[in-house]
Order: sequence, then structure tokens, then C-alpha cells
Amino acid sequence: MSRRLGDIAEVLGIGMDGDAGIAIDGVATLANAGPAQLGFLANPRYRGQLTDCRAGAVVIHPDEREHWKGPALLSRNPYADFARAAALFDTAAAAPAGMHPSAVIADDAVVDSSAHIGAHVSIGARSRIEAGAVIGPGCVIGEDCVVGRDSRLVSRVSLVCRVRIGARVIVHPGAVLGADGFGLAMHEGRWIKVPQQGGVVIGDDCEIGANTCIDRGALDDTVLGEDVRLDNQIQIGHNVVIGAHTAMAGCCAVAGSAKIGSYCLIAGGAGIAGHIEIADKVTVTAMTLVTHSIREPGTYSSGTPLMPNNEWRRSAVNFKRLNKRRHD
Amino acid sequence: MSRRLGDIAEVLGIGMDGDAGIAIDGVATLANAGPAQLGFLANPRYRGQLTDCRAGAVVIHPDEREHWKGPALLSRNPYADFARAAALFDTAAAAPAGMHPSAVIADDAVVDSSAHIGAHVSIGARSRIEAGAVIGPGCVIGEDCVVGRDSRLVSRVSLVCRVRIGARVIVHPGAVLGADGFGLAMHEGRWIKVPQQGGVVIGDDCEIGANTCIDRGALDDTVLGEDVRLDNQIQIGHNVVIGAHTAMAGCCAVAGSAKIGSYCLIAGGAGIAGHIEIADKVTVTAMTLVTHSIREPGTYSSGTPLMPNNEWRRSAVNFKRLNKRRHD
Amino acid sequence: MSRRLGDIAEVLGIGMDGDAGIAIDGVATLANAGPAQLGFLANPRYRGQLTDCRAGAVVIHPDEREHWKGPALLSRNPYADFARAAALFDTAAAAPAGMHPSAVIADDAVVDSSAHIGAHVSIGARSRIEAGAVIGPGCVIGEDCVVGRDSRLVSRVSLVCRVRIGARVIVHPGAVLGADGFGLAMHEGRWIKVPQQGGVVIGDDCEIGANTCIDRGALDDTVLGEDVRLDNQIQIGHNVVIGAHTAMAGCCAVAGSAKIGSYCLIAGGAGIAGHIEIADKVTVTAMTLVTHSIREPGTYSSGTPLMPNNEWRRSAVNFKRLNKRRHD
Repeated sequence: MSRRLGDIAEVLGIGMDGDAGIAIDGVATLANAGPAQLGFLANPRYRGQLTDCRAGAVVIHPDEREHWKGPALLSRNPYADFARAAALFDTAAAAPAGMHPSAVIADDAVVDSSAHIGAHVSIGARSRIEAGAVIGPGCVIGEDCVVGRDSRLVSRVSLVCRVRIGARVIVHPGAVLGADGFGLAMHEGRWIKVPQQGGVVIGDDCEIGANTCIDRGALDDTVLGEDVRLDNQIQIGHNVVIGAHTAMAGCCAVAGSAKIGSYCLIAGGAGIAGHIEIADKVTVTAMTLVTHSIREPGTYSSGTPLMPNNEWRRSAVNFKRLNKRRHD
Repeated sequence: MSRRLGDIAEVLGIGMDGDAGIAIDGVATLANAGPAQLGFLANPRYRGQLTDCRAGAVVIHPDEREHWKGPALLSRNPYADFARAAALFDTAAAAPAGMHPSAVIADDAVVDSSAHIGAHVSIGARSRIEAGAVIGPGCVIGEDCVVGRDSRLVSRVSLVCRVRIGARVIVHPGAVLGADGFGLAMHEGRWIKVPQQGGVVIGDDCEIGANTCIDRGALDDTVLGEDVRLDNQIQIGHNVVIGAHTAMAGCCAVAGSAKIGSYCLIAGGAGIAGHIEIADKVTVTAMTLVTHSIREPGTYSSGTPLMPNNEWRRSAVNFKRLNKRRHD
Repeated sequence: MSRRLGDIAEVLGIGMDGDAGIAIDGVATLANAGPAQLGFLANPRYRGQLTDCRAGAVVIHPDEREHWKGPALLSRNPYADFARAAALFDTAAAAPAGMHPSAVIADDAVVDSSAHIGAHVSIGARSRIEAGAVIGPGCVIGEDCVVGRDSRLVSRVSLVCRVRIGARVIVHPGAVLGADGFGLAMHEGRWIKVPQQGGVVIGDDCEIGANTCIDRGALDDTVLGEDVRLDNQIQIGHNVVIGAHTAMAGCCAVAGSAKIGSYCLIAGGAGIAGHIEIADKVTVTAMTLVTHSIREPGTYSSGTPLMPNNEWRRSAVNFKRLNKRRHD
């Protein structure tokens, strides 16, 4: 499939500069793009790659236009417009409607006739798969779950119990939604399991990464607002609430009953303590531990900077000695 | 199912105050409980919710009794007694005995006739599933494994090889027990894999979280004592030994051959180095790195506190400068 | 299977001392070895176990020879030579060639007749399984993937799309290779998904741990060189490149487009920021955050040392106060 550069600009509603008739049939990095491919410059650190770039055209900020000799799509947000352009060339075949004969579906589950149910899938009692949804191979859906319209469980996803997923959600392999939260009480020297009876609610347009876990609520639900984006290997405890448009990078962990605002950015490996609240538009840097509520938008951090180990050891010894210093 | 409040108090062996005849048919949070539901106050920070609470009754510490106007179950440990009360209303249907026709069972595996084997399960040579055990959909059990009486692998659990699970254990989806430990030796510029031949032994009443991994021992076994509770996304290396009643929150990692005592509490994201020992009744705070043995009970920490990023940057620069300070 | 000690020394090409005729039929730890088993001393901290050790022979460094009274294999690298010896006794049965009838294979996938395909496996369009490869139960292989000669996916592994695995690679259960990278752009207050179209290339002799994730590249590929060893629960972002013979312990995370050299050792829980480069032969200690490129071989660290919590609290308060200190 090929498109004229001018047509791409028109579809995206952005400006262009140069030969509008160039034929583009896909996207690529600056380093690897050929004459029929569209590249992009979003991060100025890659500006030097423009010199030898063989792309047919480049999505670029007007301020950088002078660094690129060829045709250009001009954008105030080159990464986003490149993403929109790339989507025009996405040729992934839609999964066909229908149910693989190896799938095991409960009698009282409801599967829309336009949904795709892959090989070796199980779907439990009273669960519902809506129109256009795709349940990839090896997924296990328990009881009382909903997979909304046009949502996709890629493969080997578990929805354990009472998980309700909105529309156009993508869940990557190995993710586990609706497992019991970690609720324990000590009684006479042994742990008692606190029954976990709540559900999980995932808003429209969310994306859940591979091997990420979102526990069901203890009594009420665990809730993700719309357009929340979770990377891989994340742990979301029971009764957590995450506001719309918040994004979390890989390996973050959020303890039970924490409430995170909208439009937050949580970098990789960060930890968020239980029962705290984080305001809207908070950024947390990588591997930071958030131990108390954050009331104001802004960027927050913990940890120490990277050092050669022999220097770090001396700083670390002196960190211990800070314990002896008077607070004056 | 409904129970009189007075009957609940009697079953739990705790005191009550108010109308013993109230009918209770379930549990809920203070915020959402209705007149036929039982709430609880365990964390004083939620005391204010008692004012507008519509619960039929509340489990509460005698010292907090004055803050709640309605009927109460009086408890020195409200969270535990609430958990015990909630269990009285747990209506999850037991999985029926029998084997799904899609399950693939080795000829010399032994499955008790009262066990439940779900769809798309594999069970390998010489493995044994004991009475009342539940093997949920998509589980893969390898060779020489045992799943003890009334234990439950929820779904998509892997027991790789030589994993012996005790009675009443719950293993959540995506958990992997008995994969090879990370044993490598460098030889002539290449890694040699050190054969991993040991097993995993899980004591009675343990709970293993979603996507948690427990590696098989290299030569001897990796061992969890009874009533050990592991949250999600935890990594337990080969030959680790964890004492009875220890609990670990999500995303902890324990390196090979570490030995952790009984009744320890390891908070989320903590790391424990290999070949060290931790005494009984040690608490480790969130995201702490334990690099040496801990001989005394108590609470241990590492890391730095949360700060606004601009302030943190200055502290971080000065942490690096501590490297130059004399030890005086 | 039993071997004479002298024959073992000869096969390994190392020296021995004592009775060459002793029959050895397996390996064990110093603490548990019996008279027909071979033990080893690699870590001097276990030297004291030699006193009561009942092993038939021990692999030991010549400098430690005096501490062990019995027959010995003498080695400059006892751990590696023990591993090589252990491999001689590895009796794991090879998986038989053939395809389980429950496997679902795309019409245009190619499976070598010597490969083993387990129960409940799915293999997608245009994928290829080469000679001697083993695809264990519950694996899901998507489209356009290759599993190279004699490689083994133990069980419940996902290869999502365009994943090409070399020869003799082992992938442990729950691993997810080729899921979409975390590519997002904000556009008019909502996230746009940046199409992820690249693949994953895994070199020969790699090992990928349980529940580890390696994302597909956004446009180009994510690449692991030969003999890279990844432990469990690791997250590798899109377009990361890892050099040959590098090893990473459990729970590490590498953000997108980072480039890691050869022969690096990344300890458990370490984090590596995106778009940076790490030289060859760099060691990163446990739970360190690498935020900028490392140009020189050596050992690098961040974090603070373990302390009793009451002392740590005082140091932590003073760390915050470092923010006020002048840089002088």
C-alpha cells in the first residue's frame, strides 16, 4: 500500500514542504529508512542522522527544518504525528470472527458473533465477550468478566474473576487481572486470608503490558480510568485507583488502596506505598519510592546518583554517619 | 445466606454490643456497607467514615466503640476478626471433581478422583495430584511434582520439575515454580550452565502470588516453610529457604541460597542478596536492599526519602561529594 | 550411570589427586554428598564443611587442597569444572520428536520432523521450528517467528511476532518475547499508540528466565547477542541491544534503546535508563539505577547501605538537608 506524501499531510492535518507527489509505503528510523519510507526526528540527539538519511520524507519540527534537505511533514509534535502516520500503514490482519474448536466456553457465557476466540481459550460462567473483541490463544477468562468492544487480549492473558474491561483495550501476554489481592491478618500466630471479593474495572482505551498484574479489590473494585497505559511487569495492588491518561513504565509497583491522579507519569521501577494519594500531573522518576501523599503537581524523586563503586562506598559510609549528625 | 449478628459473635468467639438479632448477609467497606452488611474499622485513619456509615454492624476495637453508634462486634484485632467473619459469607462454588477432556495426563501420573483438573492442563510423568486439589485451566505440571490435599493452582501456573506443594496452598495465575535457577560459570570466555537438579518444597497453607517465580534448587531444594505468604511478581532464587509465617509483598527478589527466618515481613520491592541469613521477626521496609546478614529482630531500611526533584538533585550532588569527606 | 574419578578428570582435562578408581554416580553439595558423589568448593566461606564432608571426591582449587583429606579433582576454576562434571551426569530424558495432537499449527508454519511440539501449543503463520527444537506445553508462537536448532521453550512461553531465536537457546516458562514496546505519544490530551513493527533477535546459546519480557522493536529489532544470560522477571524494552556474554540477574529492567556491551554483569533489580550506552565489561551492583552512559569498564553503584530503621531515619533526614548545603 502506497500513499502520496501530500495525501498523508492532508489526512493528518499538518503542513508539508517539498514534493507532495512522493510515494510512501511505510515508516522507518532515520538510520534505516529508504526512499519510499517516512522517517522522523523527535529527539534532537539524533539530528546528526539527517545528514546521511535516505528517507523519502521526514516528519520534523519547523525549527529543525533547515537540517533536512528533502521533503518534510512539518509538525509541532513530530513523534505523535509520526505515530499517526505509521498507523496509516499498519497492515496487521484483523483476527477473523469465530471460535476455535479447542476453546472451552461456559454454557452461560455470551460471546458476540463478531468476536474472535483463539485456540486453547477458556471462558467461565456468566462472562461476556463483546463485538469485535479478540481473545488470543491460551487466554483464561474466569467468571463474571466482560471484555468490551474491539478489545484484544493478545495471548495467554488471565482474567480471574469479576474483571470488566472497556472498549479498545489491549492486554499483552502473561498479564493477570483480577487475582486475589494480598490481604492477610495475623491471628494466633498464623496468617488468615482476608477474602478478596471485589473486581477490576478497566476503562476504555487502556493498554496493559506483558506479565503485568492488577489485583481484584478486597471489597470494592480496583479501577483504571480511561486511556491509562501500563508497561510490562507492573504490579497494581487491590483497590488501587488510577486516573485517566496516566502512564507507568515497566516494573512499577503500586500497593493497595493507593489513589493516583490523572495525567501522571510514573517512570520505571518506581514504588508507591499503600493508602496514599497522588495529585494529577505528577511525575515520579525511575526507581523512586513514594512513601507519602503528593498534593502538588511536579516531579518527585528518591535514590542516589550513579557512581563508580569505590567512590560510592565512601559516600555510603558517610551516609551512615549522617545518622550521628545533629539536626542543626 | 443470612446470619444473626449474635451468631456471628458466637462463632468467632468475640464480644458484641447492640442488637444481636440483626440479619447480616455479607461484608463491605465502611463507605459502601448497607444495613445488612458488616463493616470494620482497623485503621484509625478511616474513623471519620463511621459518622455516615450505613452498615448494619461494625467490627471495632473496644477503644473505638464510642465513635460508632450502631451494633458492634468488639475485637482486639478487628482486621483479623473481620476476615474471619467475611469467610463465613464466602460463597465461591467449589470446583467439581473430575478431569476436563482436554487435559493431557501422563500415564504414570496419579490424580485423586476428588481432584478437579481444568481445561488445557498438562500433567507430566510421575506427578501426583492429591484429594480435593484444584488444577485450573491452562496449568502445566511437569515431572515428579506433587500438589497436596485441597491445594489450588488457580490457572496458568507452571510447576516445572520436582515441585512438591503441601496442603491447602493457593498458587495464583502465571506463577512459575521449579524453573532452573540462574547458575552460570565462566569458562574460556563463555558461560557454562550449571545443571539445576534440585526441587522446590512448599509447606502447608502457603500462598504464592500471580507471576511469582520460585526456582528449583541447584542440588538441594528451595524451601518455603508452612504459612509463607508471597505476593505477586516476586523472584525467589535457587536454594533459598524461607521460614514459616514469613510474608513478602509484591516485587521482592531473593537471590540464591539466602536464608530468611520465620515471622519476617518483607515490604514491596525489597531485595535480598544471596548467601546471607536473616533472623526471625525481621521487618524490611519497601525497596530496601539487604546486602549482609541480619542477626537481630527489628526493622531495617535503605534508600533515601521522597523529595521534589529540584531539591533532590542538590542532595544527590552532595551525596556524591560525601565521597571526598574524611572519615572523622 | 557411574564413572571412575580418573575418567572424569580426563574428560574435563584437569588434574586429580587420590584414588582414580573411585566410582562417582552424581554430584551434590558438600553438606549432602555421599561416598559415590562429587562435591565442590568454590566459595571459601564453605571451607569448614570439608571437615565432615562424606563426598567420594571434591573439585577444589590446588590452594585449598590441604583442607580436604579425600580424593580431589584439582581446578583453577572449581565452579566451572564442577558444572562441566555435573553435565556428565545429566540424565534428563530428551523430548521425543513429534507433535501432540492438541497442538494447533498454521498451515504455512514449518516444523522440522525432529522437533517436539507439546500439548496445547499454538504456532502462527509463517513461523518455523528447526531441527531438534522443543516447544513445551502451552507455548504460543505467533506469526513470522523462528525457533532455532536444538532450542527449547520449556512451557507457557509466548513469542508474539517476528521473534527469531538462534540455536541452543533455552526460554523458561512465562517468558514473553516480542510483545509491543511501550511507545506512546500525547496528542490532544490523549495517548496515541506508536505502532510497534520491529522484531526480536536472540543469538545462539542465550538463556531467558521465567516471566522475563523482551519487547519487539518499534521499527528496527531488539537484539541479544550470543550467550546472553537473563534471569527471571527481567524487562527488556524495545530496541535494546545487549552484547554477547552479558549476564543479568533477576528483576533488572532496561528501558528502550539502551545499548549494553559484552561481558557485562548486571546484578539483581538494577535499572538502566533508555537511550544510553554501557561499555563492555561493566559491572552494575544490585538495585543500582544507571541514568547515564558508562564509557569505562568497572563497577558502578547507587543507593544507600542497609541500616537499622531508627538510624536510617536520621540519615535520611540529613540527606534531605544536604539540599540546603552550599557546594563548596
